[in-house]
Amino acid sequence: MISAKAVPGLPEIRAGDDLAELLRPFVSDGDVLCLAHKIVSKAEGRVVSLADVVPSDEARRIAGEHHKDARQVQAVLDESEEVVRNERGVLIARTRHGFVCANAGVDASNAAPGTLVLLPLDPDASARRIRAALGKRAAVVVTDSFGRAWRHGQADVAIGIAGLQPLDDWRGRQDSAGNDLRATWIAVADQVAAAADLVRRKDSREPAVVISGLADHVADEDGPGARAIVRPRDEDLFP
Amino acid sequence: MISAKAVPGLPEIRAGDDLAELLRPFVSDGDVLCLAHKIVSKAEGRVVSLADVVPSDEARRIAGEHHKDARQVQAVLDESEEVVRNERGVLIARTRHGFVCANAGVDASNAAPGTLVLLPLDPDASARRIRAALGKRAAVVVTDSFGRAWRHGQADVAIGIAGLQPLDDWRGRQDSAGNDLRATWIAVADQVAAAADLVRRKDSREPAVVISGLADHVADEDGPGARAIVRPRDEDLFP
Repeated sequence: MISAKAVPGLPEIRAGDDLAELLRPFVSDGDVLCLAHKIVSKAEGRVVSLADVVPSDEARRIAGEHHKDARQVQAVLDESEEVVRNERGVLIARTRHGFVCANAGVDASNAAPGTLVLLPLDPDASARRIRAALGKRAAVVVTDSFGRAWRHGQADVAIGIAGLQPLDDWRGRQDSAGNDLRATWIAVADQVAAAADLVRRKDSREPAVVISGLADHVADEDGPGARAIVRPRDEDLFP
Repeated sequence: MISAKAVPGLPEIRAGDDLAELLRPFVSDGDVLCLAHKIVSKAEGRVVSLADVVPSDEARRIAGEHHKDARQVQAVLDESEEVVRNERGVLIARTRHGFVCANAGVDASNAAPGTLVLLPLDPDASARRIRAALGKRAAVVVTDSFGRAWRHGQADVAIGIAGLQPLDDWRGRQDSAGNDLRATWIAVADQVAAAADLVRRKDSREPAVVISGLADHVADEDGPGARAIVRPRDEDLFP
């Protein structure tokens, strides 16, 4: 059995805020603390002012096609290793971390007017840092909402992980009848992120969710992080 | 707060078994009952014997490339509207329901030797039928484990839904600061499926999971079902 609960009453997070300090009272050993990346990014100062962004010609061209702010497009390009798709008003990019998502994770929602929130520079490092500061045998997962290739809507996934198994590898193991298992490489951390999102209201400040009951997946070591979930470009079936 | 709990001690499911009868004692009003499609398919007799499958030339050709059983490949082709990718030993198909997944959902794991379990013919109808038979104001979600385009591992998604909102539509609504929300079309049912999978062991018989705490998403009407999550082919960014 697992349970997931949003942390109530968090203040608006600002650059320099100590998330571990704020959240420690809500986290016990064996828990998984899920944090919407927005508060991690804000605490780390990963916010840009539109006024400081100078759009390139490419950004102006794309912005013209999409009826968007060219400075916003430039911020997306700055965060992108590659634009994967640019059609029907949707700019899908591969970020420098290797994540494929809309707008390279650059986000104007829940941001102060005239600012954009970026993804953390290294979300695995962010998760490790917060975990260490918590001082508990708990895992930390930094999440974001990603669209999916063939399905409508967004689901939360793990973009930074410390202390949680990213993938549970059953390849080569067998089911109760002795057959090879099909679903054998379980995206535990992404499913944790999805579960956390279910208890969160998008319009209120509930960026932190604590999941209990997953102690079997919580490790002493920080582990390989969300980096291990990224499918290398040359293995990608849908480039 | 939500909680998810696997239903203990279910027997091996056979064609004609009454899942609602078996599961009713574990489900309360407001709950979401998540069922791995395998038991729904088995109860509905959606199982083929390899001995009954006659492979076509195409199935033999693909099987040769993948070092697979040509009859198994034929079963996949029979379930497919279209083969989306056929490379590196992976056969990704669009099923007749519109789902894009490995082997069109055809599965030899947790099946009797020499048999394959198919997806339900109409998983939304399966969910509606089970919901009606439960006789509670609970939702039913039929799940399967799907791979993802750019991420390793599989996560559970909803392939059949009755009584649960498939997508929570916040498009046009605003956040606490008055900005447009970015993640605005939340794949609730897929996140529910993912949460359910977290409490299930793959090698034991725990195909049924009950999630409590989502009563706000449970409706009187069966609703549009998982069909509403399928991105139409002509809107697909990654055909």
